[in-house]
Amino acid sequence: MPDPASAPHAGDFPHVVVIGAGFAGLSLAQTLGGSGIRVTVIDRRNYHLFVPLLYQVATAALSPADIAEPIRHVLNRHRNVEVILGEVVGIDVERRMVRLAEGGFVPYDRLVIATGSTHSYFGRDEWARHAPGLKTIEDARTIRTRLLTAFERAEMCPDGERRGMLMTTVVVGGGPTGVEMAGSIAELARHTLARDFRRIDPRAAKVYLVEAGPRILPSFPEPLASYAHRALERKGVTVLTGRKVVDIGPEQVQVDTTLIPAGTIVWGAGVAASPAGRWLGVETDRAGRIRVAPDLSVPGLDGVYALGDTALAMGEDGSPLPGLAQVAKQQGEHLGRALAASIRHGEPMPPFRFRNRGNTAIIGRNAAVFDFGRRQLRGFLAWVLWAIVHVYLLVGFEKRLLVSIQWLWRYATHQRGARLITDPAPGEASTPAVAAPMRGTAAVPRGRS
Amino acid sequence: MPDPASAPHAGDFPHVVVIGAGFAGLSLAQTLGGSGIRVTVIDRRNYHLFVPLLYQVATAALSPADIAEPIRHVLNRHRNVEVILGEVVGIDVERRMVRLAEGGFVPYDRLVIATGSTHSYFGRDEWARHAPGLKTIEDARTIRTRLLTAFERAEMCPDGERRGMLMTTVVVGGGPTGVEMAGSIAELARHTLARDFRRIDPRAAKVYLVEAGPRILPSFPEPLASYAHRALERKGVTVLTGRKVVDIGPEQVQVDTTLIPAGTIVWGAGVAASPAGRWLGVETDRAGRIRVAPDLSVPGLDGVYALGDTALAMGEDGSPLPGLAQVAKQQGEHLGRALAASIRHGEPMPPFRFRNRGNTAIIGRNAAVFDFGRRQLRGFLAWVLWAIVHVYLLVGFEKRLLVSIQWLWRYATHQRGARLITDPAPGEASTPAVAAPMRGTAAVPRGRS
Repeated sequence: MPDPASAPHAGDFPHVVVIGAGFAGLSLAQTLGGSGIRVTVIDRRNYHLFVPLLYQVATAALSPADIAEPIRHVLNRHRNVEVILGEVVGIDVERRMVRLAEGGFVPYDRLVIATGSTHSYFGRDEWARHAPGLKTIEDARTIRTRLLTAFERAEMCPDGERRGMLMTTVVVGGGPTGVEMAGSIAELARHTLARDFRRIDPRAAKVYLVEAGPRILPSFPEPLASYAHRALERKGVTVLTGRKVVDIGPEQVQVDTTLIPAGTIVWGAGVAASPAGRWLGVETDRAGRIRVAPDLSVPGLDGVYALGDTALAMGEDGSPLPGLAQVAKQQGEHLGRALAASIRHGEPMPPFRFRNRGNTAIIGRNAAVFDFGRRQLRGFLAWVLWAIVHVYLLVGFEKRLLVSIQWLWRYATHQRGARLITDPAPGEASTPAVAAPMRGTAAVPRGRS
Repeated sequence: MPDPASAPHAGDFPHVVVIGAGFAGLSLAQTLGGSGIRVTVIDRRNYHLFVPLLYQVATAALSPADIAEPIRHVLNRHRNVEVILGEVVGIDVERRMVRLAEGGFVPYDRLVIATGSTHSYFGRDEWARHAPGLKTIEDARTIRTRLLTAFERAEMCPDGERRGMLMTTVVVGGGPTGVEMAGSIAELARHTLARDFRRIDPRAAKVYLVEAGPRILPSFPEPLASYAHRALERKGVTVLTGRKVVDIGPEQVQVDTTLIPAGTIVWGAGVAASPAGRWLGVETDRAGRIRVAPDLSVPGLDGVYALGDTALAMGEDGSPLPGLAQVAKQQGEHLGRALAASIRHGEPMPPFRFRNRGNTAIIGRNAAVFDFGRRQLRGFLAWVLWAIVHVYLLVGFEKRLLVSIQWLWRYATHQRGARLITDPAPGEASTPAVAAPMRGTAAVPRGRS
């Protein structure tokens, strides 16, 4: 790797500005590292988040820092790459300026938009309070605190009906995130917490996975989906397909005409693109994704590109590419190489071609599914492959090693390393405490033991 | 270890209630584990915190979960021990009841108070906003976010004077916590962050340690304190002794008549005991500590004991025992054994005798001090011993192993694994961002490189 600071023509090349340091933006910046082209990466977080393992933070298996790496640190050896911690609120395409929340501007010659996606509650934003989604570290901590607090409250709850409610979790949405969360929560209750309480039996906890479509994992082949369905049920998850969530309240979910009282509700159903399409004033699809040309450029705008979850790119078969980390990462690498060749040698921008490395979802210990297109894999071997792939993909050697050790340890012991209640539970002050304890002066009843 | 559920007379023995699962309360509960005596542990947190390593969370080296373990998990094999997550707000010594924040009561036969200590701002509670102390995980996250955000803001700050302010940290108080924090922050700036910025040089960051007394580490022998003073200065810390902090504002500390502008301020000066003395209506010293008899009982109250940081116990030489983890732990073990012998066999309660295993403070990489009473140790060997002792003391095998690997890795690379800005910085919304960025349409100036 040549020293970029001494690379020829540094500073004479157009300035590339990248918004977002997710899989797409970060891989693009890394690909342009050492190219001699000046690159500025803007993100509102100081870290890159390995979102595929976020469900493990939400279920107390990993710490946030295990799956996050400072963007500056990842990019620090590329002296041609600069990082700005800031929130983008608009883009002036006429003057080629990115506007930051605090009033500053960053001018660009080429602009890459990789701003990702967020939850969508299908117009029912009031559900967000009761059913957090899983996109950020704060989301994961919120879910972790609610889950663990619900069991603590159940332990102290003298009312059987309310205790049952507290020990019930409803996961909305049968995509990969919903499947991962439902499986992981069931394992948390049945194994990790099993011996830790005296009055309740965590193994009696109920987990529902609700999917409006006819089956879970709609983006996978049917045999893998029905395997996942069976594997979840074996782990104690009640899978409800073809059932629609019509309302979500503080401690309940209405599924069609049935009310399910639940202490914890997790949203894994809808995804919406970032508002980048509005910033640019360009055409988007219903989910807010920017339609891009085969070379990932935004039609009608000179030198502007979009990729990852916020872009609607078409595969070779004419269907939209899915919102997967591997798509984003490949797009970032492709666009990085294409921009370098275009800027340095005037070469034309080639079209992006997605290579499916295997679409995967994990159900839990010993159970995962892999779809390689022609071939499929499921069960224990798929789980081993899933673990290898994810450990390998984690940024940085230390995290790979640490996470591997934690996984091995937990596999042997069923324990989890991050069972901390640190954030305020809903409707409480900063100290979580007993919700409905023994009133009056009656003695605390003896436990099960 | 006999199965406590089948221990003879379980339930016929008096009920021991322990408030607080710090070093004192937890070691007491563990000692009573398997005794057949019914024990209830009440804590407002669901985890035991290994406070001596909290400074490493505050300086982005470790994750909260690395130094915290669920209380239920630590105690789960002792079936005679029950855990309640709840906040104690009072004690009715007449009716022998502990009152919880939500209105419930827990009756006791023997009561052990191990509620620890908190910060004291010497009556200047308004300083707390500007200068957080270091007692909880939330404290540590607040300091971490402020430190990292200050460097991010400095990177984007066009004003030299303000940039200097942002890159200055003041640590108030020259006790072990202050020394650890100052040394660790200097290393964070000079090594970990050194290459990650383009416009600022983190090695130019300033760290002040301000102590009102004539020297730092007043609880250590003078030679160790002056070694620590020199070691800190070698790491780039400016140590100010005999200088008094008279005021703390949003971005400044007034030391005597000198104003030091500072982007981050850390409070390590004052400690106050928990309010347990008020709950009991008994005599306390100025710091709020409950005076206890040699057997750790609270004079005038039948069956009530206090230990750890919230108790004022006298050593054999007649001077008060210091607020150290090793004192708390030994007291917990002693009182556990004494209560078991008293309850089961009617034996008298023996007096507690503290055995000094070595008082230690760490200055940073390669530098620590140990005071064993007669002998002293300092420098690299003391640091190695410090690391061995702290890894050994960490609860649970997995954490020991993980933390060891992180330490070894960081020692080799100067890197830190938890550099996340996740909490709102002071005066900001939840997304930390650039504070005083480039205004107008001027281009962002090129960096140092």
